[in-house]
Amino acid sequence: MAKAVMMLPVLLSFLLLPFSSMALTQDFCVADLTCSDTPAGYPCKASVGAGDFAYHGLAAAGNTSNLIKAAVTPAFVGQFPGVNGLGISAARLDIAVGGVVPLHTHPAASELLFVTQGTVAAGFITSSSNTVYTRTLYAGDIMVFPQGLLHYQYNAGQSAAVALVAFSGPNPGLQITDYALFANNLPSAIVEKVTFLDDAQVKKLKSVLGGSG
Amino acid sequence: MAKAVMMLPVLLSFLLLPFSSMALTQDFCVADLTCSDTPAGYPCKASVGAGDFAYHGLAAAGNTSNLIKAAVTPAFVGQFPGVNGLGISAARLDIAVGGVVPLHTHPAASELLFVTQGTVAAGFITSSSNTVYTRTLYAGDIMVFPQGLLHYQYNAGQSAAVALVAFSGPNPGLQITDYALFANNLPSAIVEKVTFLDDAQVKKLKSVLGGSG
Amino acid sequence: MAKAVMMLPVLLSFLLLPFSSMALTQDFCVADLTCSDTPAGYPCKASVGAGDFAYHGLAAAGNTSNLIKAAVTPAFVGQFPGVNGLGISAARLDIAVGGVVPLHTHPAASELLFVTQGTVAAGFITSSSNTVYTRTLYAGDIMVFPQGLLHYQYNAGQSAAVALVAFSGPNPGLQITDYALFANNLPSAIVEKVTFLDDAQVKKLKSVLGGSG
Amino acid sequence: MAKAVMMLPVLLSFLLLPFSSMALTQDFCVADLTCSDTPAGYPCKASVGAGDFAYHGLAAAGNTSNLIKAAVTPAFVGQFPGVNGLGISAARLDIAVGGVVPLHTHPAASELLFVTQGTVAAGFITSSSNTVYTRTLYAGDIMVFPQGLLHYQYNAGQSAAVALVAFSGPNPGLQITDYALFANNLPSAIVEKVTFLDDAQVKKLKSVLGGSG
Amino acid sequence: MAKAVMMLPVLLSFLLLPFSSMALTQDFCVADLTCSDTPAGYPCKASVGAGDFAYHGLAAAGNTSNLIKAAVTPAFVGQFPGVNGLGISAARLDIAVGGVVPLHTHPAASELLFVTQGTVAAGFITSSSNTVYTRTLYAGDIMVFPQGLLHYQYNAGQSAAVALVAFSGPNPGLQITDYALFANNLPSAIVEKVTFLDDAQVKKLKSVLGGSG
Amino acid sequence: MAKAVMMLPVLLSFLLLPFSSMALTQDFCVADLTCSDTPAGYPCKASVGAGDFAYHGLAAAGNTSNLIKAAVTPAFVGQFPGVNGLGISAARLDIAVGGVVPLHTHPAASELLFVTQGTVAAGFITSSSNTVYTRTLYAGDIMVFPQGLLHYQYNAGQSAAVALVAFSGPNPGLQITDYALFANNLPSAIVEKVTFLDDAQVKKLKSVLGGSG
Repeated sequence: MAKAVMMLPVLLSFLLLPFSSMALTQDFCVADLTCSDTPAGYPCKASVGAGDFAYHGLAAAGNTSNLIKAAVTPAFVGQFPGVNGLGISAARLDIAVGGVVPLHTHPAASELLFVTQGTVAAGFITSSSNTVYTRTLYAGDIMVFPQGLLHYQYNAGQSAAVALVAFSGPNPGLQITDYALFANNLPSAIVEKVTFLDDAQVKKLKSVLGGSG
Repeated sequence: MAKAVMMLPVLLSFLLLPFSSMALTQDFCVADLTCSDTPAGYPCKASVGAGDFAYHGLAAAGNTSNLIKAAVTPAFVGQFPGVNGLGISAARLDIAVGGVVPLHTHPAASELLFVTQGTVAAGFITSSSNTVYTRTLYAGDIMVFPQGLLHYQYNAGQSAAVALVAFSGPNPGLQITDYALFANNLPSAIVEKVTFLDDAQVKKLKSVLGGSG
Repeated sequence: MAKAVMMLPVLLSFLLLPFSSMALTQDFCVADLTCSDTPAGYPCKASVGAGDFAYHGLAAAGNTSNLIKAAVTPAFVGQFPGVNGLGISAARLDIAVGGVVPLHTHPAASELLFVTQGTVAAGFITSSSNTVYTRTLYAGDIMVFPQGLLHYQYNAGQSAAVALVAFSGPNPGLQITDYALFANNLPSAIVEKVTFLDDAQVKKLKSVLGGSG
Repeated sequence: MAKAVMMLPVLLSFLLLPFSSMALTQDFCVADLTCSDTPAGYPCKASVGAGDFAYHGLAAAGNTSNLIKAAVTPAFVGQFPGVNGLGISAARLDIAVGGVVPLHTHPAASELLFVTQGTVAAGFITSSSNTVYTRTLYAGDIMVFPQGLLHYQYNAGQSAAVALVAFSGPNPGLQITDYALFANNLPSAIVEKVTFLDDAQVKKLKSVLGGSG
Repeated sequence: MAKAVMMLPVLLSFLLLPFSSMALTQDFCVADLTCSDTPAGYPCKASVGAGDFAYHGLAAAGNTSNLIKAAVTPAFVGQFPGVNGLGISAARLDIAVGGVVPLHTHPAASELLFVTQGTVAAGFITSSSNTVYTRTLYAGDIMVFPQGLLHYQYNAGQSAAVALVAFSGPNPGLQITDYALFANNLPSAIVEKVTFLDDAQVKKLKSVLGGSG
Repeated sequence: MAKAVMMLPVLLSFLLLPFSSMALTQDFCVADLTCSDTPAGYPCKASVGAGDFAYHGLAAAGNTSNLIKAAVTPAFVGQFPGVNGLGISAARLDIAVGGVVPLHTHPAASELLFVTQGTVAAGFITSSSNTVYTRTLYAGDIMVFPQGLLHYQYNAGQSAAVALVAFSGPNPGLQITDYALFANNLPSAIVEKVTFLDDAQVKKLKSVLGGSG
């Protein structure tokens, strides 16, 4: 003990001396969303607190009172700036009975799905060989969807399903094929030319999804 | 319709021709754990099925009948070879009342924690400035822990807590400080020298955790 | 000159001495396609010649006598092992009058298109906001398609079009939406559920493209 | 059809609801060249149009009325800001009869060369073992040059040669050995010391290439 | 010679023409520390000189008149902005007789240690298996410490020891376990809960290292 | 204390239980040089000891009794397999009075030079703008050379100089311009064509450095 008491003045000087010049160390980089993004993510926010690393927005169920009877609630860098530069982000899926998360890709991340409630049927399709991998998942099951590949999830049970999702990047993107084709001003003639869908089919879905042209 | 009927023979030839030579495309790389690892992950398994992309091992609660009253169940590449090369992996935390996941780091990934049941107190400590960021998390909350920084979680409620965890890499590692110091043959004198812990303290924990020296 | 003559014996020993032990330097890593792939590419071939770095397979036009009146000839790592590990690969597009490269993505690379002959209309669609960027390209024009986003090209002129394509990775993948949906055994009911396409439309295209279910 | 009509109001709300908060998704990052560069590329331009993804500057032949009888026309991020962050860029080579692209490296990218016209002799040299890989390329041939290695191209035919070039990065750099040595103010004595070239040779090329010292 | 004289006017025009538009090439990116950091490093300083690539701060011994009888002098991006974006940085260790660099990690880099004077005992501990790798190093020896793993160095000789250190990143961070636990306001009760250390031990070290709570 | 005694049986079971399945964690990947390399490095050696992480080969001075009066002793992955996958490697430079490390590049890494003895003049040349950055370095000074750029070092003092070098990758490569041009079978006519050197100069250096052609 006597030794420890003697240590005091010296250790304190050690504390203050050699590492005082390392204040710039980058342990994290909470996004400053008021700045321009860069290819590696947003510039770092200057002043940070514990709240920047936690997010409450996935606690409540999304509203599934819509046609797809499903809701995707993102916690990407835009909603949860603390994940900027950390190679990870999250989302919550709520899928009512009969609901579906339509065919889509994430251009910039792989996806890991945790089913926490209900039953989810999920599948993805490989490129080139067009092989389909499908799986029925129950509460507690997890499934991984490789980056950039088309995939879907739907409720395969008799009660509401909930899943938590993690992505291998802070800004994974979400490209829903139907929206890409039918919810914008891409002319129907071009949609038909590049998909071989019939004109009536294209116009019907454009009408439903709010597309023009 | 007549047009579509005419398409048939031609489209089929299109199907077979130009893409038949692209069978090597790497959409994913399920780990062949019988091979040597490489710095980028395991070599790819030759024959793959839907089961390689799903994992059931996180469905059951881990056994928390131990001193820390907690269990960490990993779904890293060693347990879930489908995540190899995909930049993501998972784990499940079960923390009984009074339980704790002791101070630790993941040398090779950031961590995203989803609390699905109970109340979890969590914190991490920055390098150099030694700032502590702590947060009490309730069911539905998420928190991110930057790569390589010391952090901990403990049950801060009156009932069992469960959390799902995602990592920004397929093989994040887990270095529990107590185990690194007291559960191996690193001589007590060295432990004391590099930590300033008292000899009695070191020997007590070495005894408890099974270390020698 | 006298000085140079004197140099001779000494320089030769310099030649042989200090660098003889560096034979393992990895300037390149031509793929050994007989080995298992890894997440970073194929193991390196042991014996390499100049021919491994050149490829003749894009010299001839692809056969466009098919419904899409187009051909994609790849020079990915599977065809051109010299690009393994080098972050780049190539392809050739031949698009006859009226031809089209249908809607598709490359899950693992951005694309740079050089139009060398004819007129090509091209477009891509962003994720989330579903914005369409379209462009008519003439011989000499180039266009870039960001990784993972849906895009297409078609002949917009009165003569055959040719384009050379480079990718930002050795194995970019090619996922043609129509093939992913209609050229495999994914059941029609599921296709309809995840795309909102009508049953008749799905069955018609499945029939044309050789899908079952 | 009746079913589709009923869908309308519901689907529209689906359209507007769950994804409206994801406007920050980064599908691309067109360079804002008025900002400072970062190690990962330029900050992203706020307002983007289709023109940002296409470039016309490689359509015209470069001027080969110079000693090397060759011209390199770049489409790097500085000329074509749309490639920022996308891991790819381009250039055009025009090589008149007798022309040469002198020995050079690209410090930050591998190169893929498409010969579109004429005959090009090309070669690269490995590090440490100093092995030379050379190849005569005809229209339609491609060749890859690994990152950072010395290489050259020259016209080996009786007519003008043209090649399109892609790089595995948006800003590959171009270090021409002769210019690095003879077109600046590096003193002749130092050039001689580090290259073993004769004084007369160094001074002659410094004079020709505009160097001083 | 006559040929060389004729070259002059033409080569000069070559010098000025085709490469004048490539001034944006990024060979390096010296940090502008007045800007916000990004996940890939600091924005690049506009005006750069030779002095930006050299650093004198490691020339003098650090002050080891403190309890640990050691000093760590960093040359990270904060001290040496020239390493920004280059994947490397440095430090100097001075360890007096009896001195120690306490148990620590670098969250963002591997470390390579060159012992230049004296005798250093060093060790690191693996994650999960808690294996210890220790080594006594003499002047001229080098040792590598993998990213994120706990390690230490101490003087194992009878004279002052000096080591130069390189890191595989420009901003490696330094998390000293004792400082993370005892030099901040993390409450003693939490420290004890997550480390199993005794209350007296924790309070003693908090007192010595200046922690509160 | 009584509490600690009670802990014993429970903690031990904790030790053995939840983490026993994580033996595959990759903290490091010591190169198995008997296997084929991959684009990310060598496959990992199965059995590893402390000796794999230390290297003694830089302790002795290299032999500078040669024309350049200098020696480069590498500790790249080929000599020091422990650095495989860790993003770092090393070398030692010995430069006698009047000695020089000739103009060269490292295609795959940036370099950080620590001068430990004597006086070293060093410089590097940027691409495109051909700007030269030179610096005279004394014992204790460090300098960084960006990846892929031409640079040199020579002894600028009156006594032997020694430097330790770290690289930002395990296999940086070393391309000495003179060796690339004059120490192989690249025909003199081609060397002259791509460098504008005179025939006599090329043949003289080819003769000195052992080249043919």
